[in-house]
Amino acid sequence: MIEALDRLSQLLGRLPGVGRRSAGRMASALARDGGLAGDLAAQLQVVVRQVAPCSLCGNLTLRTEDPCRLCSDTRRDPKILCVVEDPLDIQAIESAGVFRGRYHALMGRLSPMRGEGVANIRVDALLARVPREQVGEVILALGLDTEGEATAHYLATALAGLGVQVTRLARGLPSGGGVGYADATTLGRAIEYRQRV
Amino acid sequence: MIEALDRLSQLLGRLPGVGRRSAGRMASALARDGGLAGDLAAQLQVVVRQVAPCSLCGNLTLRTEDPCRLCSDTRRDPKILCVVEDPLDIQAIESAGVFRGRYHALMGRLSPMRGEGVANIRVDALLARVPREQVGEVILALGLDTEGEATAHYLATALAGLGVQVTRLARGLPSGGGVGYADATTLGRAIEYRQRV
Repeated sequence: MIEALDRLSQLLGRLPGVGRRSAGRMASALARDGGLAGDLAAQLQVVVRQVAPCSLCGNLTLRTEDPCRLCSDTRRDPKILCVVEDPLDIQAIESAGVFRGRYHALMGRLSPMRGEGVANIRVDALLARVPREQVGEVILALGLDTEGEATAHYLATALAGLGVQVTRLARGLPSGGGVGYADATTLGRAIEYRQRV
Repeated sequence: MIEALDRLSQLLGRLPGVGRRSAGRMASALARDGGLAGDLAAQLQVVVRQVAPCSLCGNLTLRTEDPCRLCSDTRRDPKILCVVEDPLDIQAIESAGVFRGRYHALMGRLSPMRGEGVANIRVDALLARVPREQVGEVILALGLDTEGEATAHYLATALAGLGVQVTRLARGLPSGGGVGYADATTLGRAIEYRQRV
C-alpha cells in the first residue's frame, strides 16, 4: 500500500529465516518506531564500514584485522582445517573451546533447489589452501541434513586427490538427550557408530 | 566478538518475532552482504522520513497524507469503529473487503507480563473519538488469546458509560477447517455460539 514500506519489507525478506509475513511485521514496527529505525540504519552503515569476511577463512572480522585473529594466532595448529558452512558456525565451535586448528567458511552449501552450486561456495579457495598451508587433516563440520551431506560428499571427492585426511564430526545422541526423545535417524546413527567403553 | 556486529544484532533483536539467535544470523548475513546492508540502511531512512502512524486511527500512512486515506474516505461509515491491536490487522481486514467503517489501532495490547498497561495502548484516544465522532458501534477485533481477551474486557468496561454498542468478532470454526482438526477451545466456542440454519 505504501511503496516505501513495501520496499523495506522486501529487503528484510532477503535476510535468512525471514518470511514475507515476518518481514511485513518488522517493517511495520520500524515505521512506528523511528528511533529504532534510525539507530538500525546508522548501525548498518557502521557494520558495512568496519566489518568484512576474513580474506583467508571467511570469518567475519574488522577490516583493520585481515587475516582475522583466528588465522593470525600462531598458537593454533595450521595442519588441521575445520570446514564450516557459515561464519556463525565458527563462533559456535569456538564457544565449545575444544578445537585449536584453523577454519574455512564455505559461505553456503550446495543447494540445487535454491540454485546454489559449486561456484557459490568457497571450494576453490579451500582446494588452494590445503597444499599451500600443508594441511594434514580437513574436518568437514557441515550440517547433517540433505544439503549438508551432499556438500560434504562433494568436498570429500574434491579433496581426495590432495593427499589430505578427510574427517567429519561424530554422529550420535546429543548431550543431555534422552533415548526416548531421539528421532529414528539419530538413534540409528548412535547405534551404528556405537563406541566401546 | 566484534562490537559493531553485536550492537547490530541487539537492535535487530528488538524487532517483533526476532529472537537472539535469528538476530545473530541476520547480523552475520548483513555483514557479509554490504549491498543489502547499504540498501536496507537507505530504505530505513526513507521510511522514517516518509511514513508515520495516522494521527487519528494509527494506521501507517505517508506523512503527506494525515489523516490517512481510510480516515478521509467520505464513503466509509464513520458510525462504526473497528478497534484492532496493530496497523497490520487493518491491512488484513481491508484485504477481506467486507468492512466499510473506520479503524482505531491500539498499537499494542494489555500485557502485564511484558509490563504493558493502559498507558501503553491508545485507549484515551479511543474514548475521546467515540463521542466526538458520534460512533454508534465499536467492534473489538482483538486476538482471542489471553492478552487479547483481557484487552477486550477492559475496553468493553471503559466504553460502557458512553452509550455506544460494543461488539466483537464471531468465534467458531475457521473457513476450510475440519471439525477433527479444530482444538477443543475452538470447538467449544463453535458449539456454544452455534447458529440457526
